[in-house]
Amino acid sequence: MKLTLSDTKYIKDSTSIISELVTEARFKVTKEAFELVAMDPANVAMVIFKLFSSSFVEFEVKEEVDIAINLNDLKQVFRRIKPSDTLTLEDADGKLKLTLKGAQKRTFHLPMIDVEAREQKIPELTFSATIVCPAGQLADAIEDMDIVGESVVFEADGKTFEVSSASELTKAQVTMTPDSNTKIVADEKQKAKYSIEYLKKMVAGSKLADNVQVQFSKDYPIKLEYKVLNVMFLAFILAPRVDND
Amino acid sequence: MKLTLSDTKYIKDSTSIISELVTEARFKVTKEAFELVAMDPANVAMVIFKLFSSSFVEFEVKEEVDIAINLNDLKQVFRRIKPSDTLTLEDADGKLKLTLKGAQKRTFHLPMIDVEAREQKIPELTFSATIVCPAGQLADAIEDMDIVGESVVFEADGKTFEVSSASELTKAQVTMTPDSNTKIVADEKQKAKYSIEYLKKMVAGSKLADNVQVQFSKDYPIKLEYKVLNVMFLAFILAPRVDND
Amino acid sequence: MKLTLSDTKYIKDSTSIISELVTEARFKVTKEAFELVAMDPANVAMVIFKLFSSSFVEFEVKEEVDIAINLNDLKQVFRRIKPSDTLTLEDADGKLKLTLKGAQKRTFHLPMIDVEAREQKIPELTFSATIVCPAGQLADAIEDMDIVGESVVFEADGKTFEVSSASELTKAQVTMTPDSNTKIVADEKQKAKYSIEYLKKMVAGSKLADNVQVQFSKDYPIKLEYKVLNVMFLAFILAPRVDND
Repeated sequence: MKLTLSDTKYIKDSTSIISELVTEARFKVTKEAFELVAMDPANVAMVIFKLFSSSFVEFEVKEEVDIAINLNDLKQVFRRIKPSDTLTLEDADGKLKLTLKGAQKRTFHLPMIDVEAREQKIPELTFSATIVCPAGQLADAIEDMDIVGESVVFEADGKTFEVSSASELTKAQVTMTPDSNTKIVADEKQKAKYSIEYLKKMVAGSKLADNVQVQFSKDYPIKLEYKVLNVMFLAFILAPRVDND
Repeated sequence: MKLTLSDTKYIKDSTSIISELVTEARFKVTKEAFELVAMDPANVAMVIFKLFSSSFVEFEVKEEVDIAINLNDLKQVFRRIKPSDTLTLEDADGKLKLTLKGAQKRTFHLPMIDVEAREQKIPELTFSATIVCPAGQLADAIEDMDIVGESVVFEADGKTFEVSSASELTKAQVTMTPDSNTKIVADEKQKAKYSIEYLKKMVAGSKLADNVQVQFSKDYPIKLEYKVLNVMFLAFILAPRVDND
Repeated sequence: MKLTLSDTKYIKDSTSIISELVTEARFKVTKEAFELVAMDPANVAMVIFKLFSSSFVEFEVKEEVDIAINLNDLKQVFRRIKPSDTLTLEDADGKLKLTLKGAQKRTFHLPMIDVEAREQKIPELTFSATIVCPAGQLADAIEDMDIVGESVVFEADGKTFEVSSASELTKAQVTMTPDSNTKIVADEKQKAKYSIEYLKKMVAGSKLADNVQVQFSKDYPIKLEYKVLNVMFLAFILAPRVDND
């Protein structure tokens, strides 16, 4: 296997975002993509990541390869990448060899690890509400909620999409309506509650894509998708909080 | 009551500065201004703040309204304001409702609190030395003193204004003389000592106004005034340190 | 003694770098330079610093003067220098008087201290490998190694210069080859190991000079030199790590 990227932003930022949810991960390299499907250790959130082969300048893989690795190790090497460097990934004697080429040639060998988790299957989900909006707006709304509480309520009907949070004394609410940048589609009124701690990590996807697609249903998981055409796909699925308050 | 600001800088920065001295505060909304007079919990420093009604784009108040609120709560909401947002303050069922309007509409409800302190009266003070100088210069001078000690000596005669601090071994001194930016008026030589901890919080007013007016007398309180014409007024009064050294 | 600088960058940044290795230091002021030779408290590293008299706008010294001072005190004053300030150093009654002149005149008096250490002699060293390369490249290479381990191996033959670090599982390696910016001269293959903790502090010299000269030999000290012609000279000597692995 030998994969080379000249634009290292997407692999670098995605790994950083994913590492907030999952520490040990098994990437799979197929003909189509460098990809990952993983659950967080608490089994509450799933991350689905693909970096398409078309975004690489070199993408040699004879058969499917698994790269199980500690994401913090990987992040440390990625932090050393300069914008002008190319990055090459190779498997070398049970290690992942990373080569950064710029003014100097720099190589790093990271140990492969045993990831015991069986391969994750992406669940089949059907959603009743779908919103597409600027990714930064969703990230801001979640940050707004962080002032108030630990959970966030998502609500949508055909006309508005609302994110809110309430504690005994304080309350925060962001309302979006359809416009040239925002599409809202919903069957009746949908409402569900999710952990703000997880959402904050997920909306960091706004660094990578201009828009986010939000999908959810009443007391049902939520799915956030960040896409860059022909380059990458990063999605998160988060279980709802169904509590008694 | 309904107050709307399109330039949110002054309310935001003032609240942040004031919150370093006072945590719980009672604002008063009169026909003229959104204002505050408060003592710090140690009864050493007073802050006087007015944001004039002329700086609001909407200023509806039928009768004087009191808004007693935790400044840290308020600061958290103000931190979420973007430069292009307008801010509306309303009283709603015993809560303070804050609305930020930009690409999205965002609302926050904060609880009013009981502030036991009786209304503060601004003391009548007569000063023998008055200095007007660039606000940043005073802030720098106080930061310079911070290298040395816990207290700062202010000294002025008609010709120079001096800020100094001395410990057993170290000494720092800043001297200003009258020029196009600096006016110094003093009856004889005035000298007094103040806590650097408080002064550091107060000179943050340099973020808001170009100039500061400094007034003090021998072993007497000091008053710092930051003004933006027709917009805001922020002043601090600090008791002197009269110790035996 | 009276020394005045209008470009304060070199004295400020050098003092900051040196203070990471040595806390109490004895500067010597001769006709030629404001200079220092000091060992770190663990006796592992030596620093040699000269700020040449030609870089000062005023350099009055009748006889050699010693200025023994706490570098943290000095750093605190230097941090208060603004880019447009001139800095004057004088000895005044057993204190070091520092004057910053800009919009205001600011003076600081710092206590001289007793530094017991006898005067340091710069050891005579003969090196078998000499590399000159962009200072930032060496600094980056050391930062790369910091991902891996506590020690760094320097290796050079006539054709390549290599910096590497290895732990049980991880490995990092930077290779430089001669080019228009990089000169490598070595008698046979030279290889030695040094502490990364010290190297990280030393390569901060890259803030001051464009290039660094690296000199070492097999299991022998390393010397790093940062020079700005007619302005300053900053060098470090570091003992090798000769361990059993």
